Amino acid sequence: MLLRHGESTWNAENLFTGWVDVPLSEKGRAEAERGGELLRESGVLPEVLHTSLLRRAIATANIALDVADRHWIPVRRDWRLNERHYGALQGKNKKQTLDEYGEEQFMLWRRSYDTPPPEIELGSEFSQDADPRYAGIDAPRTECLKDVVARLLPYWESEIVPDLRAGRTVLVAAHGNSLRALVKHLDGISDADIAGLNIPTGIPLRYDLDEDLKPVNPGGTYLDPEAAATAAAAVANQGR
Amino acid sequence: MLLRHGESTWNAENLFTGWVDVPLSEKGRAEAERGGELLRESGVLPEVLHTSLLRRAIATANIALDVADRHWIPVRRDWRLNERHYGALQGKNKKQTLDEYGEEQFMLWRRSYDTPPPEIELGSEFSQDADPRYAGIDAPRTECLKDVVARLLPYWESEIVPDLRAGRTVLVAAHGNSLRALVKHLDGISDADIAGLNIPTGIPLRYDLDEDLKPVNPGGTYLDPEAAATAAAAVANQGR
Repeated sequence: MLLRHGESTWNAENLFTGWVDVPLSEKGRAEAERGGELLRESGVLPEVLHTSLLRRAIATANIALDVADRHWIPVRRDWRLNERHYGALQGKNKKQTLDEYGEEQFMLWRRSYDTPPPEIELGSEFSQDADPRYAGIDAPRTECLKDVVARLLPYWESEIVPDLRAGRTVLVAAHGNSLRALVKHLDGISDADIAGLNIPTGIPLRYDLDEDLKPVNPGGTYLDPEAAATAAAAVANQGR
Repeated sequence: MLLRHGESTWNAENLFTGWVDVPLSEKGRAEAERGGELLRESGVLPEVLHTSLLRRAIATANIALDVADRHWIPVRRDWRLNERHYGALQGKNKKQTLDEYGEEQFMLWRRSYDTPPPEIELGSEFSQDADPRYAGIDAPRTECLKDVVARLLPYWESEIVPDLRAGRTVLVAAHGNSLRALVKHLDGISDADIAGLNIPTGIPLRYDLDEDLKPVNPGGTYLDPEAAATAAAAVANQGR
């Protein structure tokens, strides 16, 4: 079961966030509650949580699991589930970036598979180089989606797959791009086609996996399909 | 660092709670926020969290750690940090119980070291026998403080001590009686004297331990000593 965090305060302000650790907005908290209700109603209850080190994913999971009465399940947190690092774009307004660099460059940074934005300057306002949570790891200073896939898959193999092999229902509470990376792997989506895939916030996306960990339901099943279709369309229009 | 959960909705209604999984009250959430501020100001920041399976302790830790910017630390949850199981008293009003059974019996159940209340009836409203979080464990149907010590100490030895030996700052977010059991062990308090010890809600209690895991500061140090003294006096008067 995959769950993208609800709206953050910076989503609401249309800023590139990446690894900047901003909180959920009120709307985001409401989305997380709704996600929890959907989990509860589905009857498919998570038995273990995997989440990033960022509070918008952590809080979304905390709220949703509390609503679903599953706040007590084991938790694993890891930076490899973090959002894509947006490099020097972190903290910048999406609309201003679009106006400044033009549509082509903007879309390349947002949606190309292998073109990262410029690296963030060490010690700058929105850099995480002094953050104790990343002590001891070789933290990126920018990432494209290909980079996210490269750091996510080892975590999938070493930490999530063992839980699945043990028969556990797993909830992954993460971010637009770390979940796109995971879905790309699960559904075998090409480097070109992943650009067109948006994952809406706050709506649990269920994958049932066979013995080979291939989806029985390719593309997954949203617990609220109508809301997912509406939301996916809105995500695609961000920055406009 | 020990942290007793903030006021729950049942604390506010003066009911015996035990293993019944009630939420924090608004006051309890504010206490948890204050606890987080105290952690942040102290500069002694938790590196790992141990908590019970009950949402009043889980939410207290979530709120406090978010305020202290430590929401991302590893979490371990275990039933052995749960509140004392209050047996057949769970769900009963403290004042009514006092009136019904008299001061002597009431205080025996509340404060004697080795007299548990009557066992809770299986399948009754406030029993946890069908709760999936306790599947596979030999869950108690009532407990005295001695029973809590007996189930807590193996968890202390096998799960918390290794974190301390690894040099980590540990936060234990738990309950009045599971924390009394832990403090009894740390400070070597006698079975008789532990009756007089109250731990206030929401105020982090710091223990610095030496090589033998004995407190350098016996009795611990509250991060807000004045508030702790006032609150401890109030706890002693519960049920009056």
